This record gives sequence, C-alpha cells and structure tokens, in this order.
Amino acid sequence: MPELRKDYITNGWVVISSERAARPIDFRKSVACAPSTAPADCPFCTGNETKTPPEIMAYRAAGTERNSPGWWVRVVPNKFPALKIEGEVDHQVNHLFSHMNGIGAHEVVIETPEHCDSIATLPDGQVQEIVNAYKDRYNDLTRDRRLKYILIFKNHGKEAGASLAHPHSQIIATPMIPRRIMDELEGARNYWYSTGGSCIYDDIIKRELEDKQRVVLETDGFVAICPYAARFPFETWILPKTHDPIFEDVGDDERAKLSYVLKWVLKAMHSRLGDPPYNYYIHTAPSDRNDYRFYHWHLEIMPRLSQAAGFERGTGFYINSVTPEDAARLLRMGPE
Amino acid sequence: MPELRKDYITNGWVVISSERAARPIDFRKSVACAPSTAPADCPFCTGNETKTPPEIMAYRAAGTERNSPGWWVRVVPNKFPALKIEGEVDHQVNHLFSHMNGIGAHEVVIETPEHCDSIATLPDGQVQEIVNAYKDRYNDLTRDRRLKYILIFKNHGKEAGASLAHPHSQIIATPMIPRRIMDELEGARNYWYSTGGSCIYDDIIKRELEDKQRVVLETDGFVAICPYAARFPFETWILPKTHDPIFEDVGDDERAKLSYVLKWVLKAMHSRLGDPPYNYYIHTAPSDRNDYRFYHWHLEIMPRLSQAAGFERGTGFYINSVTPEDAARLLRMGPE
Repeated sequence: MPELRKDYITNGWVVISSERAARPIDFRKSVACAPSTAPADCPFCTGNETKTPPEIMAYRAAGTERNSPGWWVRVVPNKFPALKIEGEVDHQVNHLFSHMNGIGAHEVVIETPEHCDSIATLPDGQVQEIVNAYKDRYNDLTRDRRLKYILIFKNHGKEAGASLAHPHSQIIATPMIPRRIMDELEGARNYWYSTGGSCIYDDIIKRELEDKQRVVLETDGFVAICPYAARFPFETWILPKTHDPIFEDVGDDERAKLSYVLKWVLKAMHSRLGDPPYNYYIHTAPSDRNDYRFYHWHLEIMPRLSQAAGFERGTGFYINSVTPEDAARLLRMGPE
Repeated sequence: MPELRKDYITNGWVVISSERAARPIDFRKSVACAPSTAPADCPFCTGNETKTPPEIMAYRAAGTERNSPGWWVRVVPNKFPALKIEGEVDHQVNHLFSHMNGIGAHEVVIETPEHCDSIATLPDGQVQEIVNAYKDRYNDLTRDRRLKYILIFKNHGKEAGASLAHPHSQIIATPMIPRRIMDELEGARNYWYSTGGSCIYDDIIKRELEDKQRVVLETDGFVAICPYAARFPFETWILPKTHDPIFEDVGDDERAKLSYVLKWVLKAMHSRLGDPPYNYYIHTAPSDRNDYRFYHWHLEIMPRLSQAAGFERGTGFYINSVTPEDAARLLRMGPE
C-alpha cells in the first residue's frame, strides 16, 4: 500500500510508493566524466585560468600569482551570472506585476585542479579545503547588507544541471529570503515557540537516532539520515548535532567533521548507486541579521535518479519509489 | 541586467536572466517517437488491450467489446499506481511523523490508438475527445467523497517523465489538497476579499490583453499567455475568459474551444521548438465541496528545455533564461 508522509517541518507531502519500483527503472545511473570535454578547453582546469573571470580568492602555493597555476581551490565569478553584484536593490510593485532588479552574487568554487575528480574520490584534506572555501566566501558575502540569503550548492552531473564536468560548487546570494527557506523558518519558529524553546531539528535528530532505521551514519559531530518524508530516492540530510542556526559559526574542528561525513555519504552513493548525478545545498539562516535562534543549519543531498513530472509540477507533491528506510539500509553499508 | 519577478498569485519568485541564454544551450529539443518501443509490445496500442488492467471507460465503435479493439480514447487504471482506490482514509499524527495511507485514484487516458501520434498532430475531433474523456473521468471521480483533489496532467517525452511513448495523459486524485493548489487558492482568496469580489485571474487576463506582449493567442473563449513570472522557458497558460472555479462545469461548446487552443499552442511549440518534451496540467478548484468562488480553473503547459538544479531545489526560486515576452513572440507565430 502506498503511503503519504508529511515533511517534519513544512507542509510538504510525499507519496512513498515503493511498489512502483517494480517498474523497469534501474537505480544505478552513472555520471561518467564526459570524454567530449577535452581538458584543454576546460575553463576550470589548471593552465586555463584566463578562461574564467579574474579570481575572487584561491588557496594556492606560496609565491604563485593570482589567475595562474598553483592553486588547489579557486573561486571565480560565474561567467553567466543569474544575478549581478553591481547596483542597489530596486523593488517595484505595480498591481499584479512585482519585480526587483537582479542584484546578487553568483560565484563558482572550483573544487580541484583535476578535471575528472569528484568529492567521493578526492583526498580528505582536499574536501576539507572545499568546505573551508564555502565558509570563507560565506563570511565575505554575509557582510554585504543588500544580500539577504546565501545559498551554497552543487550540481554533479549533467542530469543534475551541471553544464561543465569539472568538479565545482556554486554560491548564489539573493536580495530576498527564498520561499523554501521561509517555509523551513516558519516551521522551525512555530515549533520553537509552541514547545517553549525546542529546536525541531534537535528533536528530529533525537527521534531518528532512537528509531535507527533511517540513520545512514552517526559520528561525534554529525548525523546523516534519509528523512522520513524523503522527496527523492536516496535523499540524505547531514545535520550537525550541535544546535547552531548559521553555517558561518562553524569552527575548524566542526568543518573537518562535516567534510568527513559529506565525503563518506557521497562515496557511499558513488559505490552503491554507481556515481549518480546529484544536487546538494546548505540550508542556513538568512544573513539579514534578524533573530533565527530557532533554526538549525544543515546540508541536503538529492541524487537525481528519477524525473519530476506533471504530477509533481502541478501539485508540489513528490512521488518517491524508494522508502527512506530502504535507502538508509543501502547507504549505511558505506563505501565499498 | 537580470530581473526578479514575482508570480501574479503566489509568493513564488523567478530570476529572468536572458543573458544566460548566451550559454551554449539549444532550445530546440526533439522527442522522437522511441523506435526501440516496438508497437507489438506497447500496452496502449490497439490489439494489446489485455496488457493493461481492465478499462474504466472507452469511447468505442458501437458493437465492439470492452477491452478489445474499436476504441479511439480509452481510460484504464495505472498498472503501477502511486495511490490506490480501495480503503478508507486513515490519517495518523505521531509528533514529527505524520502519515496517511495512500488512498486515491491513478488512471491513464490513452489518447489515441496510434503509437506515434501526439496532440499537436492529431485531428481536431480527436483532441476534443481527449478533453471529453478528461471531463467524464473528472465528473465520475468528483463523486468520491474521500478524494479532495483531482489532477489531470500529461507528460510528453521521456525527459518530461513519460515512461511510455504512446500518447497518454494521467489523472491522480488525492485525499488532501496539494500544496501548490493551496498557494493559488490563498492568493486568489486574498485578492477576492481585498478587492470586494474581483477574480485575480480575470484581472490577469484583462491586464495581459491590454499589454499584449505576453499574449500567445486570443480566441472568443480562451487566452493563451506566457505568464509574467514564467518559471520555465516557453511556459504557457491557457485561461478561459469566462470566470468559473471548476473544470467540471465546462460545457460542450467550451470544451471544443479549449481543444482548439490546446492543440494550437502545442502545435506551435512542436513547430517552433522541434517537438519538445513538456508537461501540462489542469488546475481546478478542489472537489471537497467547499466554496471556491474566487478561483478560476486553467491549464498550464511547461516545456522541459532546461534542468532544475541545486539552486532551484534549495530555494524554490526558478531561473528562466528566456523572457516570457520573447517566448510569446515566437509562439505567437503559431504552427508552421
């Protein structure tokens, strides 16, 4: 019997319909490093630094020049930005037609000089440097008063929206708080005030650790779970055990622990699902300096093994043909 | 300069970033009828009626038997239903874990006996029969008190989620009102009461017809527009000029007019964009017998020419690299 489940926090419902997996769908799906992209033309490869806009920052060997080889993580403006950094925010409401000019930031974090690597296969230290770069860019962008929200995200594989194969993450900062964040904030705020100050994410961690069946990995700092109302097959959340609304506050030690769990989970997916396309993003409190003590930053990973179709588009419901319990059971086996 | 635009009705924002179309993306994308699907094995082809569950209804030649050839539109239960029709709705809330059993309906409308046809290429009379079948099934399902919402939708092409190439639509009826419908109802309700009884969709039609630049087609009964805050390249809405909350109430004459506009727009997309994959769905008031006088049924078509990625997933924002004004200009040229 299919089951309808509600998200812990928001009003989003999913249909968990594992019988549909009897359909001829193969959950192994591979993102091979596209052989058609000759590294000679890749703007993210070492030696091609002039093919990107000038770098915003880089971790590079002492004595090497900006925009030249010698870096191991490099951050550049997106060449085709969805939002632009110059100007003042201008919001106009004209009856049914509301618009704002597209002020914001759109940056690319080049995760490695190696064209065909991925977080699942990089050395631990390099994964940590990627997370360090997230934090450095986050801290810089959060000082810009025009920007209300900073989303750090990654598209791995063409089917997940990556237009270049070379491993990279992106950062988009927007002049308003996005809708999905608003939904989470509202859910977390209501829970906080209705329970006299409990964090809903803390309670999710507690309940899921007791229940065990959706836990993928527990370390001393983090928990990885397949959420109860997972929208996508093998959707996995990484939650810090320590309550903190903002990713910005994460210390060195905690970043190392996050890097470990992130790599472990992505490597487990790589082993068990055959290097699937995926998206991940960090959800943190807005950077508008309001009080978000009730929120709890976290990271959500969504493999792209199924196709959202007319039903999902029309309703906002999702149909997931792999139960999060089954997904967690497989991922818990870890990297091969 | 990119622009942020808010949806007329809901709080959804999109980034209209047409400069990004300078990226190497080709907006022509073809859904060829998959040659690998031999019609001999296709469960929706004439002669293979026993490969589906027994038919719910069919328009068929007099004297032909149920579940045998002779039909021109045929409705069957989905063989792999997301929701099941038997049982009573059981809603359980257990702290963070809310669920319902998966009661509902999931049907398939086989649109033609011909394997490689599509609405864009079918005769007008046949398109009208498809719309008649939507209405007949809608009217039947709406009598089931357990079902609160009926979504009629179509996935065209594999990239739009169609697992079979043979033209078909689907109907899913759910035991609760989906989130996206709730958002539209809330926006329309607020507008109705804050304006002393104006329908927001009526006002959108009025404003868009005055403005002209986003109008794709106007007939005596319907208007097709690319909405101001289109989430997807070439997204098009078909709105009836006559205010009516419920698709169920549409008369014979209006169904003929809807069929004409639907075919015209899909044929324009077929000609101008090269038979792209797409989804469409009908948004109508819930079937729970409450008062939805403020709502206005309509049909939304979304070609699948771009890939939602981490940013869309993480924020609920969409990035659209074709302005609705440019999209309407092309589609207005009509079928070639």
